[in-house]
Amino acid sequence: MKRVLSGMRPTGKLHLGNYLGALKNWVALQNEYQCFYFVADWHALTTEYEDPKSIRENSLEVVIDWLAAGLDPEKSILFVQSWIKEHAELHLLFSMFTPLSWLERNPTYKEMKQELGEYKELATYGFLGYPVLQAADILIYKAHYVPVGKDQLPHLELTREIARRFNYLYGRCFPEPQPKLTEIPKVPGTDGRKMSKSYNNAIYLADTPEEVWEKLRPMVTDTRRKRKTDPGEPQDCPVYYLHLAFTPEEELRVVEDGCRKAAFGCIECKKRLYNHMMEQLGPVMERRRQWEKRKDEVMDILKEGAKKAREVAQATMEEVRRLMAFAL
Amino acid sequence: MKRVLSGMRPTGKLHLGNYLGALKNWVALQNEYQCFYFVADWHALTTEYEDPKSIRENSLEVVIDWLAAGLDPEKSILFVQSWIKEHAELHLLFSMFTPLSWLERNPTYKEMKQELGEYKELATYGFLGYPVLQAADILIYKAHYVPVGKDQLPHLELTREIARRFNYLYGRCFPEPQPKLTEIPKVPGTDGRKMSKSYNNAIYLADTPEEVWEKLRPMVTDTRRKRKTDPGEPQDCPVYYLHLAFTPEEELRVVEDGCRKAAFGCIECKKRLYNHMMEQLGPVMERRRQWEKRKDEVMDILKEGAKKAREVAQATMEEVRRLMAFAL
Repeated sequence: MKRVLSGMRPTGKLHLGNYLGALKNWVALQNEYQCFYFVADWHALTTEYEDPKSIRENSLEVVIDWLAAGLDPEKSILFVQSWIKEHAELHLLFSMFTPLSWLERNPTYKEMKQELGEYKELATYGFLGYPVLQAADILIYKAHYVPVGKDQLPHLELTREIARRFNYLYGRCFPEPQPKLTEIPKVPGTDGRKMSKSYNNAIYLADTPEEVWEKLRPMVTDTRRKRKTDPGEPQDCPVYYLHLAFTPEEELRVVEDGCRKAAFGCIECKKRLYNHMMEQLGPVMERRRQWEKRKDEVMDILKEGAKKAREVAQATMEEVRRLMAFAL
Repeated sequence: MKRVLSGMRPTGKLHLGNYLGALKNWVALQNEYQCFYFVADWHALTTEYEDPKSIRENSLEVVIDWLAAGLDPEKSILFVQSWIKEHAELHLLFSMFTPLSWLERNPTYKEMKQELGEYKELATYGFLGYPVLQAADILIYKAHYVPVGKDQLPHLELTREIARRFNYLYGRCFPEPQPKLTEIPKVPGTDGRKMSKSYNNAIYLADTPEEVWEKLRPMVTDTRRKRKTDPGEPQDCPVYYLHLAFTPEEELRVVEDGCRKAAFGCIECKKRLYNHMMEQLGPVMERRRQWEKRKDEVMDILKEGAKKAREVAQATMEEVRRLMAFAL
């Protein structure tokens, strides 16, 4: 069975953007592939090194979100990056032959550097080198596929370059992982901007149904619909993009019509959204509440996952050491 | 007992420059301190990554040189860096809060970069970051002293800065290691330039007494002494600097006089040097020949050393993980 690998930085509880953009896809992949999904806690340090305790809390929350969303520890290997020390060793070995220029031209690095421009303290050695760590994360499991959005393609290309360079220098070891392109849907937050923890506009898997409705009810809509009788344009309404994710085709047409013809108001439209959203998210949220009470079991799942992941990682490292043959 | 730590890159058999500049001092330190001495095989990768097999061969040769010179595994902990995976983990953690600017201003980096300018391939991520790895090497054993030459002071300062930053961010863990300044004697090679493997002008601990004499005999001397009857100036004679390392005070005066007054020729002067050199190096060379035949024992010594080193390294890492408290 071909292998898929992906990771998430534990920066907080997951919201609909994370769910629709990645997690739902992870759940779907586990029926077709042997999936390795990891909490990228070392990666989180690149930006959170001044407040590392939050990483621990968030790591558990993220895994609870995963389980709630349907990741099945019987099918997928769920683990925490920093528990598998072999990633650090492979990262160090890769660092020795990865040209600085490859990292400096990384568009995400340039972007993040620009975005975080004022926080100069983030221009650390680890921040520059996180694609090397990422390459180690992926290649140590000899993953065939990595689910990525278009914007992350340059990243994966760097992993592929590192794999090629290793294979060229020391002998064939790593397959070049292929991107599994996932369409990243547009997921607006309650203020109409992209859903994001930092915008305080997010709906979380950890919310209760009541909280979801309290967030949906005042959500921004097409500004042309000042009154219930003003017609609107779904394409210009953030709520419509959530409908696209949750509402069945047939009712979508009803909603579009209702908006364009002002047949019903935005609250009615949101109620319809809420109902369909809950059809899908209700069980997720309920499972989440159950897992919240079984944190010991969650830890057991991660320990079991680490055992399986470590076995693969150690086998790869033995091969790497044999090929490089530098150590006594 | 206070701890001393030092390492050597396994780039080849050790010559008199390595012996007089570092190894003799290491041997002396083991009576006063708990010494950790390691083969820096991961560091060697920064420059030798294209031919890593040489690192393995050289690692064993270097340890044989150590034992021959008098490093005593009963007193000192001798080990191989890459056998202690915890160095890689601590290196990764340090990388997260080490500003790039600290590394870019490292004078040794600038120098090496200039020296190796034509080999652009050496401008790798690991090459830039080797002081971070060095900091991990030193701090993981909470070393109090690091024997360094003046030129390496900026390096150690970087380790001290990393220790301070860790202690400030996460709580006191690492003592700031102090430099143990060692005077680096001038050790000319047979061509009068600095003794160096790459100049092909070196006398090795692995040489036989005959080979030593075959190298000393034609060694460059003060160019004013074209004939035996021409007076010379010891300060301008490479051979004299070797006398300084091996010949007792009293006979030094005889040699100086013999040169300045042309009382005897350069061959006579070199014979005197050879005799004193052999007084000290003869037993080292003999021990070396013995150890050459007992490579299995050398490996056992390294295994025993790794066990002791690992114990200390693991204890430090547990403390580090507890203080940073980011991992589940």
